[in-house]
Amino acid sequence: MVAKTERKVFYFGNGVAEGHELGKELLGGKGFGLHVMTHLGIPVPPGFTISTEECTAFMHKGAISEAVQSEARAALARVESAVGAKFGDHENPLLLSVRSGARASMPGMMDTVLNLGLNDQTAQALAKKSGSERFSLDAYRRFITMFANVVMGIEREPFEHFLSEARYKSGARDDATIPAEQLREVVARGKEYFQKRTGKPFPQDPWEQLWESIGAVFHSWNNDRAKVYRKTYAIPDHWGTACNVQAMVFGNVGDDCATGVCFTRDPSNGERRFFGEYLPNAQGEDVVAGIRTPLKITARDARAAGADSSLESAMPECFGELVAMQEKLEKHFHDMQDIEFTIQHGKLWLLQCRNGKRTMRAAVRIAVDMVSEGLIDKSDAVLRVEAGRLSELFLPRLDATDAKEAEKKGLFLAHGLPASPGYAAGEIVFTADEADRMANQGRAVILVRRETSPEDIHGMKAAKGILTATGGLTSHAAVVARGMGKCCIAGCSSLTVDYANETLTVHRASDTVVLKKGDKITLDGTAGRLYRGELPVSAAATDDHFEQVLQWADEVRTLGVRANADTPTDARNAKRFGAQGVGLCRTEHMFFEADRIAAVREMILADSEATRRRALEKILPMQQQDFEGIFTELAGLPVTIRLLDPPLHEFLPEHEEDLRALAKDMGVAFEVLSRRNEALREFNPMLGHRGCRLAITFPEIYEVQARAIAQACVSCQKAGVAVLPEVMIPLVGARTELAALRTLVEKTMDAVFESAGVRVAYLVGTMIELPRACVVADQIAEVADFFSFGTNDLTQTTWGLSRDDAGRFLPAYVEKQMIPGDPFASLDTVGVGALMRMAVAKGRGTKSKLKIGICGEHGGDPASIAFCAEIGLDYVSCSPFRVPTARLAAAQAALGRKGSETN
Amino acid sequence: MVAKTERKVFYFGNGVAEGHELGKELLGGKGFGLHVMTHLGIPVPPGFTISTEECTAFMHKGAISEAVQSEARAALARVESAVGAKFGDHENPLLLSVRSGARASMPGMMDTVLNLGLNDQTAQALAKKSGSERFSLDAYRRFITMFANVVMGIEREPFEHFLSEARYKSGARDDATIPAEQLREVVARGKEYFQKRTGKPFPQDPWEQLWESIGAVFHSWNNDRAKVYRKTYAIPDHWGTACNVQAMVFGNVGDDCATGVCFTRDPSNGERRFFGEYLPNAQGEDVVAGIRTPLKITARDARAAGADSSLESAMPECFGELVAMQEKLEKHFHDMQDIEFTIQHGKLWLLQCRNGKRTMRAAVRIAVDMVSEGLIDKSDAVLRVEAGRLSELFLPRLDATDAKEAEKKGLFLAHGLPASPGYAAGEIVFTADEADRMANQGRAVILVRRETSPEDIHGMKAAKGILTATGGLTSHAAVVARGMGKCCIAGCSSLTVDYANETLTVHRASDTVVLKKGDKITLDGTAGRLYRGELPVSAAATDDHFEQVLQWADEVRTLGVRANADTPTDARNAKRFGAQGVGLCRTEHMFFEADRIAAVREMILADSEATRRRALEKILPMQQQDFEGIFTELAGLPVTIRLLDPPLHEFLPEHEEDLRALAKDMGVAFEVLSRRNEALREFNPMLGHRGCRLAITFPEIYEVQARAIAQACVSCQKAGVAVLPEVMIPLVGARTELAALRTLVEKTMDAVFESAGVRVAYLVGTMIELPRACVVADQIAEVADFFSFGTNDLTQTTWGLSRDDAGRFLPAYVEKQMIPGDPFASLDTVGVGALMRMAVAKGRGTKSKLKIGICGEHGGDPASIAFCAEIGLDYVSCSPFRVPTARLAAAQAALGRKGSETN
Repeated sequence: MVAKTERKVFYFGNGVAEGHELGKELLGGKGFGLHVMTHLGIPVPPGFTISTEECTAFMHKGAISEAVQSEARAALARVESAVGAKFGDHENPLLLSVRSGARASMPGMMDTVLNLGLNDQTAQALAKKSGSERFSLDAYRRFITMFANVVMGIEREPFEHFLSEARYKSGARDDATIPAEQLREVVARGKEYFQKRTGKPFPQDPWEQLWESIGAVFHSWNNDRAKVYRKTYAIPDHWGTACNVQAMVFGNVGDDCATGVCFTRDPSNGERRFFGEYLPNAQGEDVVAGIRTPLKITARDARAAGADSSLESAMPECFGELVAMQEKLEKHFHDMQDIEFTIQHGKLWLLQCRNGKRTMRAAVRIAVDMVSEGLIDKSDAVLRVEAGRLSELFLPRLDATDAKEAEKKGLFLAHGLPASPGYAAGEIVFTADEADRMANQGRAVILVRRETSPEDIHGMKAAKGILTATGGLTSHAAVVARGMGKCCIAGCSSLTVDYANETLTVHRASDTVVLKKGDKITLDGTAGRLYRGELPVSAAATDDHFEQVLQWADEVRTLGVRANADTPTDARNAKRFGAQGVGLCRTEHMFFEADRIAAVREMILADSEATRRRALEKILPMQQQDFEGIFTELAGLPVTIRLLDPPLHEFLPEHEEDLRALAKDMGVAFEVLSRRNEALREFNPMLGHRGCRLAITFPEIYEVQARAIAQACVSCQKAGVAVLPEVMIPLVGARTELAALRTLVEKTMDAVFESAGVRVAYLVGTMIELPRACVVADQIAEVADFFSFGTNDLTQTTWGLSRDDAGRFLPAYVEKQMIPGDPFASLDTVGVGALMRMAVAKGRGTKSKLKIGICGEHGGDPASIAFCAEIGLDYVSCSPFRVPTARLAAAQAALGRKGSETN
Repeated sequence: MVAKTERKVFYFGNGVAEGHELGKELLGGKGFGLHVMTHLGIPVPPGFTISTEECTAFMHKGAISEAVQSEARAALARVESAVGAKFGDHENPLLLSVRSGARASMPGMMDTVLNLGLNDQTAQALAKKSGSERFSLDAYRRFITMFANVVMGIEREPFEHFLSEARYKSGARDDATIPAEQLREVVARGKEYFQKRTGKPFPQDPWEQLWESIGAVFHSWNNDRAKVYRKTYAIPDHWGTACNVQAMVFGNVGDDCATGVCFTRDPSNGERRFFGEYLPNAQGEDVVAGIRTPLKITARDARAAGADSSLESAMPECFGELVAMQEKLEKHFHDMQDIEFTIQHGKLWLLQCRNGKRTMRAAVRIAVDMVSEGLIDKSDAVLRVEAGRLSELFLPRLDATDAKEAEKKGLFLAHGLPASPGYAAGEIVFTADEADRMANQGRAVILVRRETSPEDIHGMKAAKGILTATGGLTSHAAVVARGMGKCCIAGCSSLTVDYANETLTVHRASDTVVLKKGDKITLDGTAGRLYRGELPVSAAATDDHFEQVLQWADEVRTLGVRANADTPTDARNAKRFGAQGVGLCRTEHMFFEADRIAAVREMILADSEATRRRALEKILPMQQQDFEGIFTELAGLPVTIRLLDPPLHEFLPEHEEDLRALAKDMGVAFEVLSRRNEALREFNPMLGHRGCRLAITFPEIYEVQARAIAQACVSCQKAGVAVLPEVMIPLVGARTELAALRTLVEKTMDAVFESAGVRVAYLVGTMIELPRACVVADQIAEVADFFSFGTNDLTQTTWGLSRDDAGRFLPAYVEKQMIPGDPFASLDTVGVGALMRMAVAKGRGTKSKLKIGICGEHGGDPASIAFCAEIGLDYVSCSPFRVPTARLAAAQAALGRKGSETN
């Protein structure tokens, strides 16, 4: 779309648009919209666009080039002739607006200067021409304020103060009724203040005003709020903004004037109805300021709101034109439009059109409706819905209005990582046991921990939500919470958790809030925001439109989508959300159930193989039962079961008193238990005795797990349930490890099948989660039926970065642009991705049809899914609640979209 | 050398040797020696060799092939005709020895059968032929015992018992004087016992005896002690052994008979003199058994030992022949030979020759002498000395005899990892402070810890040696000890260290030994063996031969050798051992000095940049002073200084009481300190907030370090000391990190140079120690002047394996052949090495002359050094005490040797 051109300035006006085919890259969103509207014959105040290329050049040179100035002068001459007024003229002055407009919408982030061209002379001319000195002075004082603020960086408050004083002195009801005399003083004081602050008089030369304002607009690309916005929405810094210079029109020069905003469809629910609000006799900024209550545009909406007047009834001719134009624009852009308009003396002007922001609910509905209407096809519909936000549809969340209200009341406490989306409110508890106990009494609780550990699982289950002070997006709390579909804020670093005194201290900029056990808090897991008290929740649910979009997604995607599911309940959720199997069943999670942990601890503390086997035999029927449950829920679908992975000490109690109790229960001396516990402790457990290393030292652990799987297969198959088990060995770094354990698993399972007289086909494969596994993937593939990337661990080792500790510096890293984003949230495709690519190439070099998937947390992240599709994986696996997201992202990847850009 | 051939059997005898050009791969060391000797006209009892290929085939089929049997029969016929006797003949029977012989020498590891061919008939014939029934019966009973043991796996003890009883009954002084009558009973009882245990009579068919014995020799390749030996000496399992079948000669059939072993030079000090021992009228095994004291071969040695007789005096003719033959053999093989011989009725036979084992001292001297003698050239000399054992020459160590003695007395306590070579004896202490205190009183102490931490440095310095219960070869204790050239045994897992009660409990197979503070122990760091009490040490020193070999090494090597040196003392050692600069100066080690740690802790606990800066400014002059010291020691040589690397919490005290004391010292509330301490704690410190990540969050740390370096440069340069500083940034994973910190370092250093009016050229580079750094090495190279591989960390992250925790399962891994060896001791060239290769290629792709080195522990390991040379590194850097090893290994690499195979 970008035609590389020498020209930097493009004229539009009176049906002629030089840039209607140049696109947003060069003209910015706003500029391109103006050119297209002009080209479509829609009335747009004439003007010209200075391209984004000049913004980039300006940033380097610090000045607008002579060439561009000369192009702009020529374009402005065309504007003058189209409007029939002259810039800086003392009789019939042309006034201009100067606005930014980047490629992506960045609402309110950058600067605008209105009424440019006014000075002491032209203001008098405007008064004469408009017949209203008040209007002219009001425009002039607005211009002075904006110019001072935008161009000179002077805060607005003193200027607002002059106005307030004028209103007070004159006894006017509102700004609009301040008489001209007082406004004249406001203008005078404004100019005086300007000189005091800048040491120069307010510029009277319109050309000086223009060049300074254009420069300021370009500069505003790098103001702080624009930079923050870009970081939040991943907009590249090098894009730059275009600058639109346009003839002013006024909605505030009489009762035949108005200004408003409208949408071609309802942006909150997606309903197909023209919808909007306006204010008669007002400027655009008055609508935004919210001082006057806007009126409805359609008569229907007005009636529904119990109001008499609407644009439809008050200005039927303009209304008719507006309806026609919005239809034309939606048809042209094939998307819902957000339109700004002004009516000046009964003449309708469109000032902006763009694809309208919308809720997820509306996005889905509009996409589906537009397919029925023939406006877009199914692929467009699939691409229109932002995969990363899809879960908003089926998770309860805080209403934006309620959240704002709460903030006003000072209830907002802290910001953390949005670890698991959703909403939760309840009483603070500090221990898993307490959470369990209170939940059993029917109370809603929030489990607050510095960080959770596997010991806390029962408490996390019992709680409505989880809040931690440390840990990142893939910390234990975050991963488990997402797996449970439970709201969680992690790494909330302004909190201090004091277990001993059972208090939660929140260090806010302004004050310190101490909360205690039983106090109520509310978590917004979607935004990572914590509130005091119990805020209301807005329920949400999926609908037919949602199912329709996912069905279309399934039609186009080639990447399979499985779910990570550790229990039959997880498996049921996975099925409900459309998973095509289980990509990761973590057997250790089964070990933490209250009735099992005792046997598990016996196993760990065993001092001989025989004792260990005895304990394992107790665990076997429990595991078997779980596997049967999962197989049954997902009958006929593949289920990947990962054998025991974490270091054994994770299963032991953390505190001395718990250890003492355990010793008593087990009839073992505390000292013995304590010594064993000590011996199991590791300096860097992530890099320790875990995964397949456990089974190399204690083969009986995997042997018993393999038997449990095989026995579950037998009993399911006998019950008529088709099983497709895939046994996965974790943390393999060398072919030898997998070869040895594969033999063990096969020997064990085959023996069970033989003695039961049953034939069950099964696969044995491995996680690829160490850099070494990627490097020697060709060798490992010799003994693997499948690979599954464990990208959490692979990211940790490739970066040498523990996900549990990264919270301490990763935010600063992102802030300082050391890395583009949290590599645990979205795959580091350059580093980790290169190793994955290598593993795929080497693995398939050995076995061309090798099945390869991913079961790390990245399996639910749209950008990561796009990468997985690109490198040729067969499937992704993610938390059940992220399965719809993955299905959609997979379809978008198939349709060629990289990442999850918003439309 | 290996000619792939259909033939598997090769005859030698009477000057004809079919295999004298086939080499050890096919014939094994012993077989090849026999063929070569025969070819050289040296008298060797005729026989034939079955090749190693047949061993491999035998392992698969479990039987000797028909073809080989037929070849063997043909070869045996030639032996019969050469000897003039017939196998199994009842008049003139040929007796055979059947011996293993692998490519590499594995002394005593595999099995031998002698006197084969004897049965009830041939024994009578032998009695008649030799004129001694006693001799014949003794040979028969030896054969029965060996056959039963080697072929049938029956223990030797019952057979020895029959002999003892016979001796007792006959009242004989020793076995050699037991009369025939009693021996006849020994033979009868042996055959009876054989039948009882095997259910079959003792085989009377000589051919059956032969095939069974050959099979047993092949099988012995896989006996347990052979497997252990191969693992220890890295001999591949697939090599297999050859089998030598040879006519028996006897050194025990009269006073004109003898048997002995000799060396062409002195194997203990390398002196050029013929040297050996023998026994008249004896079999080879009698020499080994050590029942009779052997006599000297030369008259000179006999005189020196105060003995009358020598081979020279007793059998001058044979002696003369032997002297001529040993000269011929040394000339032929160009190496010191170890020769076995037997004299039967005045006729000298050589039974074996091989390159003789020797001490390091002898190896060096022999290599140098042989160059002077024109036997080998300098390159050969460089290749002849085993680089990995070089440090034995300049570290004190236990004498082998003393060690054996101690073991006999039950003083051997435990086996651990040989973490740092050398010897140390002293009193047990359990804390670094205690070590310091007692050392100041002039007492020799051994610091015993579960594991050391940087807090223990002063105690490690004070101690004679360090003993830890956990940790691997690159644990803190091991790395620091090697750096200090101090003896250390790490990961001694049969120990329990009880700090509270100040006891060290050693769990031995037989008993449990409890030692307490002040008890004396001795460490053999070279062998990783711990003894009770204080054992004597044998001093050692380098000599001119040593310097000569290293000088030759320096002439051929292309790889530079630097040292890791953290202090001026280290730097002095580095220089002494020939380092060409410092490859790694760890600035954090400077932080632990007693007078600095307070300032360091202040820095860490600072709650603002300003406070942190104040503390850092106190550290600056100390660091500057260190740098000046190091620069001065290594004037004109490059010094690579790594900026702060470890996580900050490593500098904080570990125990509450220490923390309380610190709080008091610093005037900070204990609670505040404790909270900060807690906040700094990490789940996986290796993967945490460390390395350049510290400087991204707290740039002032590196800024102050850079200033200290620059100021040291200025003051040295002004003092006329040439400086070549290379500033190294650790733990870089992305180009952005290095780019930002490079800018910081340059800005800081340039400012110092400018204000001092001094020009100092310096480099800024990075460690490559994360897999990601390898993957994006092309990008990182854009902003790096050099790379230095940190292979300790790179191995940790590539394998996902913490060196501190690996001790728990790595031994089992090696044992079960999951990995070829400890990847922290010798580079995993397949996995880690592949990433290094990638980094070199990518880095040099960006900058073709990029300087690349290695500063991980592998820089001192010969096999790893060979790999570094292969992938084109510029230099290796290692502990000062390993510098000679590295120089030699680098030369060997240049001469094309892979790894550190012994010759």
